[in-house]
Amino acid sequence: MKDEIRTILEGVKNGTVSVEEAVLKLKEAPFEDIDFAKVDLHRKLRQGTAEVIYGAGKTPDQIRKIIEVMLEKGQDSILVTRISEDVFDRLSDINNISYHKEARIATVGTGAKSGGIGKIVVATAGTSDIPVAEEAAVTAEFLGNEVTRIYDVGVAGLHRLLSRLDDIMTATVIIAIAGMEGALASVIGGLADCPVIAVPTSVGYGASFEGLSALLSMLNSCASGVSVVNIDNGFGAGYMADMINHVSVERKE
Amino acid sequence: MKDEIRTILEGVKNGTVSVEEAVLKLKEAPFEDIDFAKVDLHRKLRQGTAEVIYGAGKTPDQIRKIIEVMLEKGQDSILVTRISEDVFDRLSDINNISYHKEARIATVGTGAKSGGIGKIVVATAGTSDIPVAEEAAVTAEFLGNEVTRIYDVGVAGLHRLLSRLDDIMTATVIIAIAGMEGALASVIGGLADCPVIAVPTSVGYGASFEGLSALLSMLNSCASGVSVVNIDNGFGAGYMADMINHVSVERKE
Amino acid sequence: MKDEIRTILEGVKNGTVSVEEAVLKLKEAPFEDIDFAKVDLHRKLRQGTAEVIYGAGKTPDQIRKIIEVMLEKGQDSILVTRISEDVFDRLSDINNISYHKEARIATVGTGAKSGGIGKIVVATAGTSDIPVAEEAAVTAEFLGNEVTRIYDVGVAGLHRLLSRLDDIMTATVIIAIAGMEGALASVIGGLADCPVIAVPTSVGYGASFEGLSALLSMLNSCASGVSVVNIDNGFGAGYMADMINHVSVERKE
Amino acid sequence: MKDEIRTILEGVKNGTVSVEEAVLKLKEAPFEDIDFAKVDLHRKLRQGTAEVIYGAGKTPDQIRKIIEVMLEKGQDSILVTRISEDVFDRLSDINNISYHKEARIATVGTGAKSGGIGKIVVATAGTSDIPVAEEAAVTAEFLGNEVTRIYDVGVAGLHRLLSRLDDIMTATVIIAIAGMEGALASVIGGLADCPVIAVPTSVGYGASFEGLSALLSMLNSCASGVSVVNIDNGFGAGYMADMINHVSVERKE
Amino acid sequence: MKDEIRTILEGVKNGTVSVEEAVLKLKEAPFEDIDFAKVDLHRKLRQGTAEVIYGAGKTPDQIRKIIEVMLEKGQDSILVTRISEDVFDRLSDINNISYHKEARIATVGTGAKSGGIGKIVVATAGTSDIPVAEEAAVTAEFLGNEVTRIYDVGVAGLHRLLSRLDDIMTATVIIAIAGMEGALASVIGGLADCPVIAVPTSVGYGASFEGLSALLSMLNSCASGVSVVNIDNGFGAGYMADMINHVSVERKE
Amino acid sequence: MKDEIRTILEGVKNGTVSVEEAVLKLKEAPFEDIDFAKVDLHRKLRQGTAEVIYGAGKTPDQIRKIIEVMLEKGQDSILVTRISEDVFDRLSDINNISYHKEARIATVGTGAKSGGIGKIVVATAGTSDIPVAEEAAVTAEFLGNEVTRIYDVGVAGLHRLLSRLDDIMTATVIIAIAGMEGALASVIGGLADCPVIAVPTSVGYGASFEGLSALLSMLNSCASGVSVVNIDNGFGAGYMADMINHVSVERKE
Amino acid sequence: MKDEIRTILEGVKNGTVSVEEAVLKLKEAPFEDIDFAKVDLHRKLRQGTAEVIYGAGKTPDQIRKIIEVMLEKGQDSILVTRISEDVFDRLSDINNISYHKEARIATVGTGAKSGGIGKIVVATAGTSDIPVAEEAAVTAEFLGNEVTRIYDVGVAGLHRLLSRLDDIMTATVIIAIAGMEGALASVIGGLADCPVIAVPTSVGYGASFEGLSALLSMLNSCASGVSVVNIDNGFGAGYMADMINHVSVERKE
Amino acid sequence: MKDEIRTILEGVKNGTVSVEEAVLKLKEAPFEDIDFAKVDLHRKLRQGTAEVIYGAGKTPDQIRKIIEVMLEKGQDSILVTRISEDVFDRLSDINNISYHKEARIATVGTGAKSGGIGKIVVATAGTSDIPVAEEAAVTAEFLGNEVTRIYDVGVAGLHRLLSRLDDIMTATVIIAIAGMEGALASVIGGLADCPVIAVPTSVGYGASFEGLSALLSMLNSCASGVSVVNIDNGFGAGYMADMINHVSVERKE
Repeated sequence: MKDEIRTILEGVKNGTVSVEEAVLKLKEAPFEDIDFAKVDLHRKLRQGTAEVIYGAGKTPDQIRKIIEVMLEKGQDSILVTRISEDVFDRLSDINNISYHKEARIATVGTGAKSGGIGKIVVATAGTSDIPVAEEAAVTAEFLGNEVTRIYDVGVAGLHRLLSRLDDIMTATVIIAIAGMEGALASVIGGLADCPVIAVPTSVGYGASFEGLSALLSMLNSCASGVSVVNIDNGFGAGYMADMINHVSVERKE
Repeated sequence: MKDEIRTILEGVKNGTVSVEEAVLKLKEAPFEDIDFAKVDLHRKLRQGTAEVIYGAGKTPDQIRKIIEVMLEKGQDSILVTRISEDVFDRLSDINNISYHKEARIATVGTGAKSGGIGKIVVATAGTSDIPVAEEAAVTAEFLGNEVTRIYDVGVAGLHRLLSRLDDIMTATVIIAIAGMEGALASVIGGLADCPVIAVPTSVGYGASFEGLSALLSMLNSCASGVSVVNIDNGFGAGYMADMINHVSVERKE
Repeated sequence: MKDEIRTILEGVKNGTVSVEEAVLKLKEAPFEDIDFAKVDLHRKLRQGTAEVIYGAGKTPDQIRKIIEVMLEKGQDSILVTRISEDVFDRLSDINNISYHKEARIATVGTGAKSGGIGKIVVATAGTSDIPVAEEAAVTAEFLGNEVTRIYDVGVAGLHRLLSRLDDIMTATVIIAIAGMEGALASVIGGLADCPVIAVPTSVGYGASFEGLSALLSMLNSCASGVSVVNIDNGFGAGYMADMINHVSVERKE
Repeated sequence: MKDEIRTILEGVKNGTVSVEEAVLKLKEAPFEDIDFAKVDLHRKLRQGTAEVIYGAGKTPDQIRKIIEVMLEKGQDSILVTRISEDVFDRLSDINNISYHKEARIATVGTGAKSGGIGKIVVATAGTSDIPVAEEAAVTAEFLGNEVTRIYDVGVAGLHRLLSRLDDIMTATVIIAIAGMEGALASVIGGLADCPVIAVPTSVGYGASFEGLSALLSMLNSCASGVSVVNIDNGFGAGYMADMINHVSVERKE
Repeated sequence: MKDEIRTILEGVKNGTVSVEEAVLKLKEAPFEDIDFAKVDLHRKLRQGTAEVIYGAGKTPDQIRKIIEVMLEKGQDSILVTRISEDVFDRLSDINNISYHKEARIATVGTGAKSGGIGKIVVATAGTSDIPVAEEAAVTAEFLGNEVTRIYDVGVAGLHRLLSRLDDIMTATVIIAIAGMEGALASVIGGLADCPVIAVPTSVGYGASFEGLSALLSMLNSCASGVSVVNIDNGFGAGYMADMINHVSVERKE
Repeated sequence: MKDEIRTILEGVKNGTVSVEEAVLKLKEAPFEDIDFAKVDLHRKLRQGTAEVIYGAGKTPDQIRKIIEVMLEKGQDSILVTRISEDVFDRLSDINNISYHKEARIATVGTGAKSGGIGKIVVATAGTSDIPVAEEAAVTAEFLGNEVTRIYDVGVAGLHRLLSRLDDIMTATVIIAIAGMEGALASVIGGLADCPVIAVPTSVGYGASFEGLSALLSMLNSCASGVSVVNIDNGFGAGYMADMINHVSVERKE
Repeated sequence: MKDEIRTILEGVKNGTVSVEEAVLKLKEAPFEDIDFAKVDLHRKLRQGTAEVIYGAGKTPDQIRKIIEVMLEKGQDSILVTRISEDVFDRLSDINNISYHKEARIATVGTGAKSGGIGKIVVATAGTSDIPVAEEAAVTAEFLGNEVTRIYDVGVAGLHRLLSRLDDIMTATVIIAIAGMEGALASVIGGLADCPVIAVPTSVGYGASFEGLSALLSMLNSCASGVSVVNIDNGFGAGYMADMINHVSVERKE
Repeated sequence: MKDEIRTILEGVKNGTVSVEEAVLKLKEAPFEDIDFAKVDLHRKLRQGTAEVIYGAGKTPDQIRKIIEVMLEKGQDSILVTRISEDVFDRLSDINNISYHKEARIATVGTGAKSGGIGKIVVATAGTSDIPVAEEAAVTAEFLGNEVTRIYDVGVAGLHRLLSRLDDIMTATVIIAIAGMEGALASVIGGLADCPVIAVPTSVGYGASFEGLSALLSMLNSCASGVSVVNIDNGFGAGYMADMINHVSVERKE
């Protein structure tokens, strides 16, 4: 953003931009205002990713309108999260849109082509954690990453996890997903030598308190190199993992 | 207790016990009333263990008085938990009393001689959990059990735990003690084929919320065969382990 | 697991097992990987019980697939918990499957034949706690235990509980199940001389906070020899009780 | 208060009270304003009790000043709660003041003479609950009630409680005081046929969460006829018990 | 119960009761065991009220069965709480049963005839609190009390409450019912000179946290003479109020 | 109210009002009692606004009855909050009633004409917060205020908020509405030089705990000049903003 | 801030400001960076008040350094909150500094001269709430407001509050401060026709949970026109009240 | 670890390692057992960092012993966290040990030499957050990273943060540290295009609930690319940041 300010200021100095235009630019440039939403159009430039629409709490019409604005402005890789099959059905006529059922994600366009330093591993403790894992995996893939899935390797059966030690030891980033007691993150954190992003899930009952138990577990992980995102936030983990897998490449250059 | 009722009733029938005596017996027999406490004197018979005094919240004088009543009534194995060194110093003139500093336990007499089906393993995730572990271990030993200690084997370094797999696999009961994320209980629960008693500790900071994190973790353990006692309740775990290690023997007979 | 490692290592030394095979065995042996699940196949050997499938959060198809893999591998005693009648109806064609409605459990095969040191008592405070109690009782019976049910004996009517003192005093393990204030566990813990496994239930309203009240009560029990499992976790209590009732027998040998 | 309004209005009508005087009376009559406190002087008349000063959070000087105003206005029975021995020492020169150490209560004057329908029973689960019990008992005695103390009769040793069944069955009101799991209130509530006021205490550790566990237990009591006051609120229970034991007498007349 | 023990013991002494019969009596007398419930049949004698069935969590068949047992044993005044209109419709053929819709209570028989020291006032802060208030009022009326209802007098419009000061000042017991901030209990507690039973309700949204806000408010009431029952527990308040309004009468005699 | 008291007293003195009439007036004047509700009729005079009916938890019939009483008594500007479209449909025959769908508000009459010191800005962090914002905006408009809406300007895209700095800097009051982490209130609080009313919303999932996260955020705002209303309480914010925008005007006069 | 941007841009256009200077200005102008703090120097201009230093968590040296920077830059009215007497003693040599003991506030300079629309009323429920009230009152006075204090008028003695109805009815803003059940805010909110800022305090014990009870009460106030600040945040309430009492005046002009 | 297993297996095959030796190696190699601790000695190899000792809950003697074992085994870069000045004073004779007071960290040796992809920015919202920030910064520096500190740039004064936009935009990883409402993480997350690690602190009072408010805020951040560590866990953030800044480099190779 600072670069834009500098550019605009230079323009003002050079006389190519009037003061009124400058103020206008600062205010109008970076997004499109459609009342119920301020559609971000330069996030790609600013944050290096496709645009993302958080679908929960938005009507199908609102989602459609936002997608249309994005497409008009030339943004052709769009990820819509937390979108039910019913809502998707009302959007299915949009060009190049497709639905990832378990992940509850709709994508428009093909996403970024695969790149990054290495691969991202997405591991779950149980079968019930898979929807959250798919949200993470689909997000990471659409943002341009190679993803390896390791599902149902909870710590009550350590041998299942140890049998995938190859993948654990060679990942660039690991997303560890678990409900109930959330111990998977700590065990993986102890084994791996790369950053681990822990995702607590609301899987469980009783004293799991909708994911609170796993959340607290992961925040208190005795393993170093583990950080945590919100309960069931597969998207957030996938996005963060992409950043780690990519940004450093860009920094290098 | 039911047997006592039956015995008293038989006595009434036989005329060896009057009705008034019967009511009196039902009311006075099982404990000694010293106003601020009702000292249980037959717990040994009723529950097969030495008497226990919960020291927290009692003055040195109250504790001394309770011990005296017990000794007078012939109870010579007494365990006093949650007792600070300061309090102990004011009781150190009692015969055969000794202090277990890390466990914050005072014992009077020699305790039961070792018995039971097998050995009890007491494992901790970290060094800071040792005081709770010692409370469990000293309790179990005083009640007549062989105890093996395995300290600082938290899941962030699985190899440390796996190196003690012999002990884990051959225990009769395991007490798994951990603060922070409390994952040790689940991992041990998955490895062992005996009952695991999990003890959350208040070790940690921030979102450990004084042991709440470990408590929830352990209650939500994905491993079967794990049950949980109160935060920092080493005594309760040692007592429960003793029951498992002994009672079944008695039942057999 | 350690024995398997040793066996494999011996094989390597003797030349009957190649190094590659050894690594392979360590990784592939103990479970079958069907992507969405890693089906444990040797838990019976490792933990002395039938295989268990936690049904909640799994689709009927996933459950069917897991059962099929187990049956193929020779595991013929299978317990499926937390399975609704609707889901069961879609699995009812499986051989030897039957449904325990109140317990919401499906069983395949006949389970273990009854054994163990003694009997397990399952007691509830109220009528509404019965579904959790049945989950515990059916689990314990399928794993090979004699079970005595004592329902609706909450502490507000002590005479109801006292009338079953025989059962309480002669049990090997007692499972005490209660919602609301959960006092049953403490009262039984004070009467019995065997381990008590307390199960808080979500029965109640208002300040019972979905079982939190009973959970905290039970964790703070003033009676010794009480440990606690998750809210509504009848299965966990039944499994733990089976372990206590059996494992010590095996240890003895 | 309504009567006072009517009286004042009558006076206005009769010309014995001017309008200005009436407004003044309505505003100034019922208390003395000493800036940091509005000292209630007619509570005795309005609520049938001695005046009470809640000592916590007040300086010795503030307490002294309030007592002086009360004495000046003819109020000679005063109860000061939550007052440490140190604070009392600085007030010990006041006439007819005396200190109840365990209860942490100071009293000025002799209190009401004993009356009421029957006796109030104050029961505790443990020895550590006694300070709260004494706050209740001293309050009730000072307000003019006969009090029977039954301490250390927690439910883990039912026989201790049952031995005092006479007192339980013949009380007019029972105050049941317990920390930890707070089960005492439910058991007494089931046995007694009079109102039970439950007082949770902060006695305990870990998951007792400073009395929360006992509080929730008591609110969820499965026994009817149990109501609850704040954690450690011995005074409130004593005051409520006095009301029940007295007010109905007055109503009768 | 103690009297029964004494009677039985006297019978044993006199030879009119054998020991076996005595044990039998102690165990079987006070309730009828129908497996899923232990139906209390002498609560009336023991606690001076009609029998109560807590309807929540029971099937229509279970409720019918319990009512039948009660009727058979001569108990003809029965209160069934927490029963939906649907469930009632399946029980409407029972003799003398009727339904109180707002209170969600079914009653069998006519209840006790009105008595007690004075009248019970049931006050609510808002219109939405009325169902809880009706549960309290119908309970109190069925147990034999005169009830005055004062609804929608929350503290945001003090004049509404003050206009009913007559009722407040002449009540024997007041039940103060409020959701949201629950301030009604404190204001009434300050005005009245009789015991106040506070009932928090789950009315509200957001930070009312299903009644937690009102519950905490009421527990922390700065007014003396206020005690609290569970959230939405209209029945409990009605029952407690009846006890206060009646038991003291009986004690007097 | 005090003025009314004085007026009534003067009347009594002058003989134009009898004592009985005075008491009657004090009790009956300010509202209409229709049993299930005490309909406030002079709030307009007392608090300078239209009457408000909180629709949640009231039946359509109750709402209709309350509106009728108000209209009869000459109150012609009525706001009904928290009313679903279904309920509105059953009231749509009332004269001059109209429905604001997103706000879930029904209004009768035209409301106050616009006035006040300046304009009220209503800002939201996201699109999903709009229903709460509309509740605030419609309330404020009906009470006679000019409202500017700025929606979807959450802090993750600061440029969107900064582009509306004009509105922020020239508002008289700002209502900042956000779910999730609720940071919008702090950022606006730091930019604006007028009072900010923060409204946490239940928008979010997982660790947002139904709005708790945003609520705590806003209460802990590091910006001065921010106060908070209940979660989702758009009405409360609109009402408070109206008071700030108006009352001071009146005070001036 | 926007004006500054515009000014800087105009300067760039006119050639009086170079681009580098412009970027520099944008970055350096509004505060002084002294590493451990970024001292705001134009808040007065931007937000119309004296500068405020939040003293908690800062060393005496840090506070002194910040004051020095402010004085150097011409800011001569400074308010330091949450500063103990010990810390103040180490700063007492600063010119024109003085200490408000109960409020725990230090002030440098004389503050703004009194102005605003009307007066601010600060009311407390009890004597123990006075320190928080003084923090609010001293803040408001220093910022240039007339303040009326009404202390110890909790709702358990309504007459105390009603006697000050004059002050309540003629205030421009009221700050209602209460711990325990926090009902004062609702009662005042119902009586007053001006904005009420509610401050929960940590006064109380047990289930007051350090102010949580009062906080929830106030957030759920059934009175309209009440908003809430953090527990014990007297400063925040005083600051907000000043804004309401002043800003509208400025807006008018 | 897997490589070690393979190496050992190869040794067994080749006859250079006996089976007994192999089992021994698997158990003894990776750490030194000194009873109260299992000192990890190969973490450097396994996780690419210096060894870390968590000082809290360990005695000075225990810490000394662990350091000695590490030094003996050739580990010469050691970081000891959460160590008070008192404890450090008793260890200050150790070679090459030095103390970082604000960070409460002791370091032995010189740490890694600076490397990594780019620089790590450590930003705090306030002055009181600096100790946590220093824990993060010292950790990151010791592990071999260039660190830029930006302190006291909380969102209530956006201009302070915006003035450091250069640093924000060019960082490889940012650690955002804030107490109270924790909004800093979201604002930085929206501005930056690199991973942000959010550290909630316990700075604040009242409804900050010891850091809970900031923790929830950060978990619910509406900005993508933000993950969270435990409250006050500066070390964890520094360690995670190092991993991101380094591991990818290693992966590249």
